[in-house]
Amino acid sequence: MAQPTNLTRIGLAGLAVMGQNLALNIAEKGFPISVYNRTTSKVDETVERAKLEGNLPLYGFHDPEAFIQSIQKPRVVIMLVKAGAPVDQTIKTLSAYLEKGDCIIDGGNEWYENTERREKEVAKLGLLYLGMGVSGGEEGARNGPSLMPGGSFEAYKYIEDILLKVAAQVPDSGPCVTYIGTGGSGNFVKMIHNGIEYGDMQLIAEAYDVLRSVGKLSNEELQSVFTEWNKGELLSFLIEITADIFGIKDDKGDGYLVDKVLDKTGMKGTGKWTVQQAAELSVPAPTIEASLDARFLSGLKEERVEAAKVFKSGGFTDLSTDEPVDKQKLIDDVRKALYAAKICSYAQGMNLIRAKSIEKGWDLKLGELARIWKGGCIIRAIFLDRIKKAYDRNPNLANLLVDPEFAKEIIDRQSAWRRVVCLAINSGISTPGMSASLAYFDSYRRDRLPANLVQAQRDYFGAHTYERVDIEGSYHTEWFKLAKQSRI
Amino acid sequence: MAQPTNLTRIGLAGLAVMGQNLALNIAEKGFPISVYNRTTSKVDETVERAKLEGNLPLYGFHDPEAFIQSIQKPRVVIMLVKAGAPVDQTIKTLSAYLEKGDCIIDGGNEWYENTERREKEVAKLGLLYLGMGVSGGEEGARNGPSLMPGGSFEAYKYIEDILLKVAAQVPDSGPCVTYIGTGGSGNFVKMIHNGIEYGDMQLIAEAYDVLRSVGKLSNEELQSVFTEWNKGELLSFLIEITADIFGIKDDKGDGYLVDKVLDKTGMKGTGKWTVQQAAELSVPAPTIEASLDARFLSGLKEERVEAAKVFKSGGFTDLSTDEPVDKQKLIDDVRKALYAAKICSYAQGMNLIRAKSIEKGWDLKLGELARIWKGGCIIRAIFLDRIKKAYDRNPNLANLLVDPEFAKEIIDRQSAWRRVVCLAINSGISTPGMSASLAYFDSYRRDRLPANLVQAQRDYFGAHTYERVDIEGSYHTEWFKLAKQSRI
Repeated sequence: MAQPTNLTRIGLAGLAVMGQNLALNIAEKGFPISVYNRTTSKVDETVERAKLEGNLPLYGFHDPEAFIQSIQKPRVVIMLVKAGAPVDQTIKTLSAYLEKGDCIIDGGNEWYENTERREKEVAKLGLLYLGMGVSGGEEGARNGPSLMPGGSFEAYKYIEDILLKVAAQVPDSGPCVTYIGTGGSGNFVKMIHNGIEYGDMQLIAEAYDVLRSVGKLSNEELQSVFTEWNKGELLSFLIEITADIFGIKDDKGDGYLVDKVLDKTGMKGTGKWTVQQAAELSVPAPTIEASLDARFLSGLKEERVEAAKVFKSGGFTDLSTDEPVDKQKLIDDVRKALYAAKICSYAQGMNLIRAKSIEKGWDLKLGELARIWKGGCIIRAIFLDRIKKAYDRNPNLANLLVDPEFAKEIIDRQSAWRRVVCLAINSGISTPGMSASLAYFDSYRRDRLPANLVQAQRDYFGAHTYERVDIEGSYHTEWFKLAKQSRI
Repeated sequence: MAQPTNLTRIGLAGLAVMGQNLALNIAEKGFPISVYNRTTSKVDETVERAKLEGNLPLYGFHDPEAFIQSIQKPRVVIMLVKAGAPVDQTIKTLSAYLEKGDCIIDGGNEWYENTERREKEVAKLGLLYLGMGVSGGEEGARNGPSLMPGGSFEAYKYIEDILLKVAAQVPDSGPCVTYIGTGGSGNFVKMIHNGIEYGDMQLIAEAYDVLRSVGKLSNEELQSVFTEWNKGELLSFLIEITADIFGIKDDKGDGYLVDKVLDKTGMKGTGKWTVQQAAELSVPAPTIEASLDARFLSGLKEERVEAAKVFKSGGFTDLSTDEPVDKQKLIDDVRKALYAAKICSYAQGMNLIRAKSIEKGWDLKLGELARIWKGGCIIRAIFLDRIKKAYDRNPNLANLLVDPEFAKEIIDRQSAWRRVVCLAINSGISTPGMSASLAYFDSYRRDRLPANLVQAQRDYFGAHTYERVDIEGSYHTEWFKLAKQSRI
């Protein structure tokens, strides 16, 4: 193997596609990098790519000891391996050769508590640790991801210069990286980013569904609608690739590829964790929950096919009508509904981060997180600049919904939003995410919910007590005894 | 203290209201019982109640050793203490005096994994263990609860005769108790029971909200509506107490008490666990999630009051109109919507139980669970008999929705259901649970969801691959490269 004439600046272990691309990105920014992988063919493959992509200063090692020895001290090694046991295994391998003051960075989608456990474990060896969320997929890793490093601030400082160059660069708002906070905060923030991503993808799928199933738009029309949307308030990576998807013809048959893709969505765990954390933190997150449920329901393809038969044979009339719809009006309504629902989804995600930050004492800056998501990551969007500004205006904003700008945007869109959700319902397709967002909005802005009845029920059967609207204190009523006198 | 002349049949430790009532229930059924509590005044209180309530064979002990020695072998002791550390503490106290072959039963709302851990721990001492869900609140505990014992079958057999008498008795379907299964299955089933209870309570609250806010029904009218509903398909404990609640006048001022109850709902953890388990098991549970979120949102009372001001001052027009509604038609629609949404909620809960049963090898019988919930517990309802019959017809039913009877009931109610949800949306109040149920139904009965787009997006940015509708196999497309040629 080619050896670096001098020591390299940083190392990277784990050369699946994300690792390869991030290593090449680092090398391309002028930082000599050592790379290692247990399966050595991946090392050679990466070295080859480094040559082809411009003789980049990337050096491959088949042996972990030589790999570690090739890095300048204090050594920093980024791991990009599968979350869970492989991370523990890699730490074991690397730490055999690392020395006091060196640092390990986990760049995978790891559960934040694992990072906190490992930070403590390697601290016993005198090693520093960072859990760094990396978003942007393959393409982002290669050309500029959004980076969410959390853990040792000292370790962050070692490589801040690298991260600032490697991250996506957004004009007027800088590189998409910031020191997130201590402990597992980097992983936690990345997890919520992914939960928000679930929400965005589901809401876009619902917009597609309404336009296709009710509006009868063709793929050509859908491509043009999403291309148009990508010039306005919805400008974002996910809208852009959605427009792209509708334009792609099937290479194995007639028509468009999107129509041949099976309606079964996979998932990898971060959405599940987000929903579980929402429940744990008592933060309502209905849009993200609806998105996760939609993935679960998509997976029940065979059951759905059977259920469709049951309801058709049972006399269920398909509700979609052939009544002509005003396409332009529908497109306009759906765009507004999508945008309004998106605000609710982000409100949930940001409040999840805040709740955890308070619990853990991480002191996270919500506006700064919105800033580093403006580029590089999957949810990158012009919309995030509005979120950043909302928190600039008021860092203690209780909820994005009550920011004056967002409030106004919602007010302007709410009629369209209600129309779309009801149209979907009356067409028999429902829009789980858009309607969960709407229910969230309608509940959050109500000073009086029917929760008084629920609490009265709880006091009735379980003596759980209740508060009153007019007098301080906690009360219990013998409802059953009183009821016997007033039953009709 | 009065000593039993002979040894008693069973012991009970933990004499808060649930423990007291269950002990008195057991004594009343003719089983001499020893009771113990760390705070001894509770012991004396219980002994006093046993006297007053008919000289029941209940014997109080201030000392744990004497308590244990007073019970015949193999000894069985039911604990009714707060879940978590108090249970471990109580086990420690009791097991100091228990002997090989004796049995401990936890009757609290314990996390099922804690029960499985404790079962293993006490097994080292030769003790048997049961985690037994007890539902029915104070009143149920005293006069007949629904009992969900899981764990050691041998231990269950020791006290089966007691449980069969103590449990609620339902004509034609027997006592509301059955051996649930091994391990923590009794606690798990009780947890899902509570998740379903959250759903029922939320759906009822939404029915109330629509009738009150849109239909402008008075409390008198609401009482009469719910009293009427309790004579038909909705006949259930929760509908009955809801009718009662609307009839109760405020004892501290004018008007009805329900209007003075603060709209903030408490909770104790089983709903949260249910939602977390749903995510863990990949089972969609949107109605139960919406119910939990509604409780979280109810807790944000101060934020809601502020948000209501923001939207009012921001030009938000209250959408509720003074247009006269056809009250009778509305009441009829809401009843149908409530019933249809309830089917979806139970479908989610039952499928959660099945998924866990498969994961853990518990071999739970869903129809039998529906049977033991017909009486005693908070969700007791005539409706559960329909569920039992659905599983009798087909024990492998994939989902309650596709049972021919339930399918027919939904078809008959779906127009009303859609009307109610849309009416709520257009009145600005939304019905999170009813609309989550509807979206669940509409997704489950669709053979083609828009999930193809989501999977195409995942393959676009993350190379996650996709399946096709027409050809077997797993595919990846270079969407980005192809898109460059087809962009418009």
